[in-house]
Formats: sequence, structure tokens, C-alpha cells
Amino acid sequence: MFDLQAYLDRCRQAVNREFESVFPENAANSRLKAAMAYSIKAGGKRVRPALCLAAAEVVGDTADSEVITAAGAIEMVHTYSLIHDDLPAMDDDALRRGQPTCHVAFDEATAILAGDALLTLAFETLAGTALGSSKSPEIWMQVIQVVSAAAGPRGMIEGQMRDIAAEKIPLALAALERMHALKTGALIVASVEVGALLGGGSREQVRRLRAYAGHIGLAFQVMDDILNVTGDPQLMGKATGTDREKNKTTYPALLGLDESRSFAGDLISKALQALDNFDNRSEPLKALANYIIVRKR
Amino acid sequence: MFDLQAYLDRCRQAVNREFESVFPENAANSRLKAAMAYSIKAGGKRVRPALCLAAAEVVGDTADSEVITAAGAIEMVHTYSLIHDDLPAMDDDALRRGQPTCHVAFDEATAILAGDALLTLAFETLAGTALGSSKSPEIWMQVIQVVSAAAGPRGMIEGQMRDIAAEKIPLALAALERMHALKTGALIVASVEVGALLGGGSREQVRRLRAYAGHIGLAFQVMDDILNVTGDPQLMGKATGTDREKNKTTYPALLGLDESRSFAGDLISKALQALDNFDNRSEPLKALANYIIVRKR
Repeated sequence: MFDLQAYLDRCRQAVNREFESVFPENAANSRLKAAMAYSIKAGGKRVRPALCLAAAEVVGDTADSEVITAAGAIEMVHTYSLIHDDLPAMDDDALRRGQPTCHVAFDEATAILAGDALLTLAFETLAGTALGSSKSPEIWMQVIQVVSAAAGPRGMIEGQMRDIAAEKIPLALAALERMHALKTGALIVASVEVGALLGGGSREQVRRLRAYAGHIGLAFQVMDDILNVTGDPQLMGKATGTDREKNKTTYPALLGLDESRSFAGDLISKALQALDNFDNRSEPLKALANYIIVRKR
Repeated sequence: MFDLQAYLDRCRQAVNREFESVFPENAANSRLKAAMAYSIKAGGKRVRPALCLAAAEVVGDTADSEVITAAGAIEMVHTYSLIHDDLPAMDDDALRRGQPTCHVAFDEATAILAGDALLTLAFETLAGTALGSSKSPEIWMQVIQVVSAAAGPRGMIEGQMRDIAAEKIPLALAALERMHALKTGALIVASVEVGALLGGGSREQVRRLRAYAGHIGLAFQVMDDILNVTGDPQLMGKATGTDREKNKTTYPALLGLDESRSFAGDLISKALQALDNFDNRSEPLKALANYIIVRKR
């Protein structure tokens, strides 16, 4: 029986070790670096890095240190997006993962700049790693293209715009799905694609893994909506019921809780189907997919 | 006699043509894209692109379309930094280049995201161009590294942090110079370096051009401080006297106007010296250096 928790712990530790050298404890002589370190070390589950490493492993052997570095860069992009989403001008959240958000712990200007800095540092990290790598520079250039396209105005950022707009005008089901595909799905797909590219995956393998990631990305979001209704604020480290308060369009609001759960289950089935042609190295990806619908936070 | 104005016009037109295809007029179906286009088309002088093209020309022949694309990507990074610097949580400026700033014309959330999107799109543009280029991928990877390092937490963003902090605690001369080197100097140096790299410059040529750019970058900032005291708000398209109102440490405040002018002049002399070993293709770079200290806006 595959032990997902041990696998996730290993991935998290590997990425956190990477961050210890990029964001050392004693580098607090810069308020900017302190804010970046604060948010990057705020106890994220490191789901995207784990997906990246697992994707590298399913097409190659073990994920090497360069894959871990790339996974860390993706987590920087994710963390930047959380910092900016939490800002007063956006979701205005004071708590994230049970701790004060960056603009509360520091100030708004510092939070905006810490987000900007994490985003920029992600690309600097990828380019710097590429320049010392034995992997082909074309592969690395694809990695940078994949991450930037997923994070950019045709990906995550457009998704956040639509999410904000959806607080005023309710979304239909297709628009809700599209919003999530952009806001969170794009970077999840990119995480898996980056791992597959750096692991040496074929075009066809990359295509299947992208399909897998698209399904689990949406399932993750459906479960997020469900947990916002049914979750335990203590376990989640954040308030629940907030979507309803803000009149956000969610899957439970559109489909009801039961049908939302069954929709998430269907998505996970499709994700698992996309892994059909891979060998037993796909265990972590399968377990990650199943974890999404059983998680409590 | 070299006609700088005609040269700058040609550069601006080349980069603006590039932007017309990236940000088409009729793409206003997305509020995000509209905000990005609004700020990118707000009438910037395109100094950084011109420096990039001129650097490519001084080491190579003419700047090809890929250099123009890269110059446009650098202008996207510059524009993002202006949008974020203008935000209420930062400089809280309502006017930029004589027009309402992005957060005034749109709203704060949209402005934050439009900035994020322009930064991200810059890297997507560089990676995408690299993947279709006949130039070596290593050169392009260096370009991405140079731009990200200049824009990131050891460059422009740290500079903006220090600029904000300096509103409360006055800076000494060395700290003022360091702040400017980070906040505006780094991206100006990167603009020239990117042009030199893509133009096929040698290590030594790149080193000299970086020195040139460091000097003109600082001179540009000294003149900005001077113009904030002596400039014509009508010509500049923005208010003057604002540094004094905000108690900002400036060169005129530390050195007086005359010594500030003479310091800027010395910097330009050093910049011109750094061009000594180049042939007459250095005319645009020389003229750009001289322009900095005679400009009225």
C-alpha cells in the first residue's frame, strides 16, 4: 500500500530545504526578504511541488535536484498569487493557513512587492538553474513558457479577474468551470507539465499528464467549495462559510452538496483513466488524485 | 549630425507596432487586457527599448525583430513597475504621463493584476520568442536571467522598498545612489545588456555597455530629481515639487541644484568614456547619454 502522507512529507521537506537556502533565517536585514520568507514558509501543503516531482518520476526515474528547484519556483508563483489575492483591494483576507496574511503581518506595500518579488524570483531561479543544467536549454525554455503562460493574463491572472467579477454577477456552470480552470487549474497543469518535461517525458506522456492535471485541478476546486461549506475552520486554518457571505458562485450553490461531491468523484475517475498507460511509478499521482476528494483541509 | 529624435521615433514606433499585435485595440472584451493595454499605450518615451535596440546595433548590425520583441518585453516590465508604484499603498499617484493612473482609470484590484500580468507576459514573450529563434537558447536564457535578476528582489523591487522607506528616514548620499541603482538603474543596465547579448556582443563589449548603462541610469535619476524641482509640470505631464512635499531624499536636497547638475554631467562623461572602444555605430548610445541631461521631461 502506497503511503501518500510519507510521500508528501518527503516532497515538502525537499522543497522546504530548497527554500531554506533561498530564504535563509538570518536574512531579515531586508524587510522585503522577510516578507517573502514569511509567506513562503507559512506552512503550505506544497501540493504543486509534489505534483511536479511525481510527474517527473512517472516518466523518468527519481526527481533530481533540478526538478526540486523548478518545483520550488512553481511554489513561489503560487505563494505570490496567494499574497496578492489576500490584499485589501482583492479578497481582503486577514488569515491564511491560520496565520496573519502578508499585508497584515507587514503592510500593504510590502505585501504587493513581496508578491512581485516571488513571481520574478521564480523566473530568475528557473533561468539560473537552466544555465547550469545538463538538460537541454530548449526543455528549460519550454518550462519557462509553460509556467509564465499558466501564471499570466491568459491563465491565473485572468482567472482571478473573473473570480473578483463573480462576486457581483453570478456565474453559470460553464463560466464557473472556466474561471477555475484559469485561476487554479492552469498552474496545477503547469506543475505536472514542468515535472514531465524535466523528467524527459514524451509528447504523448505530457499530453496525458496534462489531462490528468486538468481533472484533478478542477476536482480540487470543487472540493474547496465543498469544504468552505462543510469544513472545520480549526482543521483548515481559515474561516468557512465565507463564499456564501460573499455571494460567490460555487459548485455547492449551483449543484448542491451531493451532486458536487459526485462531480468531484467523476473528475478523479477521469484523472485516473488518464494515467492508464503508465506503469506503477504512477502510484503517487494516483494517490494524490484520491487524496483530493478525501482531504479535510 | 546624428538625429536622436528621429532615432527615438523609429524605436518607439517599432516597439509600439509590436504592442499593437500583443494588445490589439479591439481586445477590450477583457477588463484585464484593457488595463494592460491602457498602461502600455500611455505614451511612454520607450527609453529602455531604445537603449536595448541601440546596444544591439553597436555590437551587431541592425536590431532584428527579435530584439524589438525583447525590448518590448522590457518595456512591459517597466510599465508593470509604474502601475504598482502608483498604487494607493505605494506612491498613491493619480496622474502619470498626464493621464489617470491605472488604478484611477480602472480600479485597484485590476491595476495590481494588470501589473502582475505585464510582468508575467514579459517572460512568456521572451520564452516564446526564444523557442522560435535561430539565436542560441543559452543567449536567450541569459536574457531571461538578466531581466528577472534586474527586476527582482535584488534589483528593482528592493529599490522600491528602499524608496518607500526613505520617505520616513532620510538617506545619505551612498544609500541614495544604491537605492537608485536598484530601483531604476538595474533595469536600464538590463535593457542595454539584453540588446548587447542578442546583438552578439562579446563578454568585454557587454561589460563596457553595462558600465555605460550604470552611469546613464544614475544620471537619468539625478536629472529626474532636478526636474522635480525645476521642471514644467505641463511639459512633464505630471506634478512637480512632489519630492519636497513628501520629504524625499533627492540629489538637489543633498547636493544643491548646481552640484547635482555637475554630478549628472560627470556621470554622462563616464558613460561616454565607456563607449570609447566602439566604432561610429555608438552614435545612438552617445546621443541618448547626452539627451538625458538636456531633456525637459
